[in-house]
Amino acid sequence: MKTASICAIGDEILIGQIVDTNSSHISRALNSIGVRVKGISSIGDDRQTIISHLGNLLKDNDIVIVTGGLGPTKDDITKDALACLSGATGYKRSEAQMEVIERILTRRGIQMLDINRAQADVPDTANVIVNRLGTAPIMEFVFEKGKYGHEALLYSLPGVPYEAIGALDDILAAIQSRFHSEPILHRSICTFGLAESVLAKQIEAWEDSLPEYLHLAYLPNAIYGVRLRLSCYNAADPARKATMDKAVDDLYEILGNYIYGEGGDTLQTVIPRLLQAPPQARHQETIAVAESCTGGLVSNLITSVPGSSVYYKGSVTSYSNEVKTNLLNVSEELLEQHGAVSQECAEAMARGVAILLDTDWSVATTGIAGPGGGSEAKPVGTCWIAAAHRNPDTGQTEVVSRKISSASASREVNMQRFASNALNLLRLLMQQKLL
Amino acid sequence: MKTASICAIGDEILIGQIVDTNSSHISRALNSIGVRVKGISSIGDDRQTIISHLGNLLKDNDIVIVTGGLGPTKDDITKDALACLSGATGYKRSEAQMEVIERILTRRGIQMLDINRAQADVPDTANVIVNRLGTAPIMEFVFEKGKYGHEALLYSLPGVPYEAIGALDDILAAIQSRFHSEPILHRSICTFGLAESVLAKQIEAWEDSLPEYLHLAYLPNAIYGVRLRLSCYNAADPARKATMDKAVDDLYEILGNYIYGEGGDTLQTVIPRLLQAPPQARHQETIAVAESCTGGLVSNLITSVPGSSVYYKGSVTSYSNEVKTNLLNVSEELLEQHGAVSQECAEAMARGVAILLDTDWSVATTGIAGPGGGSEAKPVGTCWIAAAHRNPDTGQTEVVSRKISSASASREVNMQRFASNALNLLRLLMQQKLL
Repeated sequence: MKTASICAIGDEILIGQIVDTNSSHISRALNSIGVRVKGISSIGDDRQTIISHLGNLLKDNDIVIVTGGLGPTKDDITKDALACLSGATGYKRSEAQMEVIERILTRRGIQMLDINRAQADVPDTANVIVNRLGTAPIMEFVFEKGKYGHEALLYSLPGVPYEAIGALDDILAAIQSRFHSEPILHRSICTFGLAESVLAKQIEAWEDSLPEYLHLAYLPNAIYGVRLRLSCYNAADPARKATMDKAVDDLYEILGNYIYGEGGDTLQTVIPRLLQAPPQARHQETIAVAESCTGGLVSNLITSVPGSSVYYKGSVTSYSNEVKTNLLNVSEELLEQHGAVSQECAEAMARGVAILLDTDWSVATTGIAGPGGGSEAKPVGTCWIAAAHRNPDTGQTEVVSRKISSASASREVNMQRFASNALNLLRLLMQQKLL
Repeated sequence: MKTASICAIGDEILIGQIVDTNSSHISRALNSIGVRVKGISSIGDDRQTIISHLGNLLKDNDIVIVTGGLGPTKDDITKDALACLSGATGYKRSEAQMEVIERILTRRGIQMLDINRAQADVPDTANVIVNRLGTAPIMEFVFEKGKYGHEALLYSLPGVPYEAIGALDDILAAIQSRFHSEPILHRSICTFGLAESVLAKQIEAWEDSLPEYLHLAYLPNAIYGVRLRLSCYNAADPARKATMDKAVDDLYEILGNYIYGEGGDTLQTVIPRLLQAPPQARHQETIAVAESCTGGLVSNLITSVPGSSVYYKGSVTSYSNEVKTNLLNVSEELLEQHGAVSQECAEAMARGVAILLDTDWSVATTGIAGPGGGSEAKPVGTCWIAAAHRNPDTGQTEVVSRKISSASASREVNMQRFASNALNLLRLLMQQKLL
């Protein structure tokens, strides 16, 4: 199996001003063509460090992917380090990349400067892969067997995430045209509603019975719950693939409704699938959201799905009580008697927004994200969520609600937990309809 | 200057299912006490790899921070590797951590299992720092000078981000009690509205005049614009600090209104500061948001600021035209004549939501985030944004609007650009009032 290492270059990563998200996308892409990623690293914008670190990675790996350090500004020195590492004798200009640079600058109304032109120059040892989404060219370096004891490939990608990710298909094609590898197969089962340790106990016997070539990992996350990832090595053997599929079937038996999807599914992407299944599919049912403590996050998650405008009408963020009363028809008496963070308020918000926006489904949140603002009876981390559905036959509305207690001190984590629990409640209500 | 290396452990990182965000927080924290981070790395859940990689890091660094691999489930083997690396002869139970585990499980209504109890066990070579936010204890290992040629410290933190971040103050205190270091000073200037290359050209002469101990870096981001980070090494020398402060003053002269803040400022955190400055401060002015293509993101950014309920009343996500008309009073004629993605619609939305929620300020977005849905006249990436202010003296409303063209193929990036430009337009309108 071919191995790879990924390296992000940039002082901004080492001092913690940006997070390297590219390596994650690149890992996933390499895995998909059967390349095993042995390590991910970040180093600073220092010429000598870059040369020695990349040299070490090339010794230990068949493929090295480098991101970052290719911007037009003076703090970027990766290209020079790569020229040295590959024994270049000079630079050459990529005319194809130059055309992209001209097009991008024209569209943005920016005048072409020398530092923009210089971006099209690459070491004469590099093969250029045109970057269609940005100004910095992608470079391929091929190191013959004599240099590191094995043939090694190095690809240099821009650091800007959407440019790096946009280049991946070209990179994968280039790698595959040079190497052939054994596939690894992954299946990820998305669960929501069980803590990691409880989940582990529940599937303990199943996990213990897995053969050695199946590897299980737990991936907990505030937004999407716990993903269970099953990896099958040397999956070209059809018997192994069959065993893996059987193991996943058994997992569905054990976990039932706690499973909401597979692979890259999220709570927000399964919702349109549920709306398309009968009996909802009789007409295009619609969704509305009412949010207090989540401040727009539930709505943003729903609209992160391309095509969501088909079933999503919109939301009201009723951050002040005045908006809850005036727009969502939550009565002042209710707020006085139960407070804004209450089952009654969440249910009234869910009903109110469905009427206001005239939708079939709705979901609502009202809670205390913190860090301040809690009380003994309603500590920070308390949230009431509600989901509602109007039966198209009877015209009657069913409302369900739950109390969420998040133990986090982080406002962001609490908001994420509240929002994902709200989407999950909507998902469960939809699945109940489908049964 | 003491140096450090940070290592995240977990197969889930190497196959790209999660992004290591902890290392970024840890870097920032170490920097703040004058420790230079030389590298960040991620490796898999493999005992031998962990032992050899951490051994190498300890050879090259004074401090090694490890995250991850401490969960209750079977795929986590970090603790065992650390026992081996540190020459432990057995395990001991941390009673203080046991109390936290009991408290957390009780609060979540989860029954205590053996795998939960085992989390309180640590190698007998470890000093325990209690993790108050989660079940896995934080461990400190001190390696005497004899082992790696210098005294070295290793800290093992849980992988769950809010637990790792929550532990940082304790870790910093532990490091400082053992080492004393030379400070590095950073100042970050937050700009919005200039592309990186244009910004670079504009400050070229200034940048060329910087002394060698001042280092400049450009950090572009879809949400917060381009941050310029100036780093001053050996900043204990007061002359150096003075030179740095003068350089920043000069930068303000050159960039003017393109600068919106410093340090960790974001467009959403500067808004409350602007509201508190005269003449706004005469009464507590308020904000409302109307969103179409950004789907709740602008509202979510505003509410990500603790205390935002003081000035933020709420928002309407008018994802369907029906909601734009019924709630925001955007006339059907306007929509027919100009379309939803138009200057007229954005301005009407901003006016409409300010009236609906009775606020002083408002901001609106309407555009095409993609990937589908564009036309030749209005391609994907087109967005109209508007901001409005009602003059408290005259009662008249001033509305400003701009067209945004984002060249990204990513729905998420486009949404982020639209949202941040909307916040920036609101910021500029507020600053104009202040001039």
